[in-house]
Amino acid sequence: MEQSAYGLRISVKLPFETALERTTEELKKEGFGVITTIDMKQTLKAKLDRDFRKYTILGACNPPLVSKALDAELEVGLLLPCNVVVYESDASGETVISAMAPMSALGVVGQNPSLHEVAADADARLRRAMEALESTL
Amino acid sequence: MEQSAYGLRISVKLPFETALERTTEELKKEGFGVITTIDMKQTLKAKLDRDFRKYTILGACNPPLVSKALDAELEVGLLLPCNVVVYESDASGETVISAMAPMSALGVVGQNPSLHEVAADADARLRRAMEALESTL
Repeated sequence: MEQSAYGLRISVKLPFETALERTTEELKKEGFGVITTIDMKQTLKAKLDRDFRKYTILGACNPPLVSKALDAELEVGLLLPCNVVVYESDASGETVISAMAPMSALGVVGQNPSLHEVAADADARLRRAMEALESTL
Repeated sequence: MEQSAYGLRISVKLPFETALERTTEELKKEGFGVITTIDMKQTLKAKLDRDFRKYTILGACNPPLVSKALDAELEVGLLLPCNVVVYESDASGETVISAMAPMSALGVVGQNPSLHEVAADADARLRRAMEALESTL
């Protein structure tokens, strides 16, 4: 697992569609439902007639954590849901999965101890989901 | 208009539903389509049986800007779409509209001049939409 400045990234030897399904499953095990899905390839084709690699943005939401986060900071919705991006790698037959680290996103909203606690929990859960994806594939 | 650490915020003397419609219209004038909608009140009720204020997260996407942003930085999807949050104010009959400032969100992804240019453009557009909402209501 690679730690980027703003998240966690892995590359898996799986076709895009399978990686997308597996990602959704592992997120679910950590209490995250996928509540939004943006098919960027389709959007760029439809709006700009641009051909682009398969690229989907999943919006993951863990309701108990979101509920706590809203109590800590009403405007935290600006940072929700937690994005997990799945896209075709430049390496043939591989797919990249990249997750926003909530603790990084939180850099934006500054110091709020209650919010940091929730973000740390979300961070740990997303990390476990990514580890599971990396190890079982 | 109030500048918060991570965005722009206004309060309008309009019922929630009207504010939501007007926000969508003004975003459209600046080239942003609403591609995701999260009804947080409904989500918290359905998942946790929690009563919460009316609170909707709109995901706004300007396709030409997103296309440029992806060229500048493939993983920018972690920060997309641009969130605009609309929620019932504590002040009776008022609604709060809060938009993520892309330049703030970008603090997360560090230094990339091409990406900064796109973010500055998105930032200016969102600011104009917010100004229009504030002035015409």
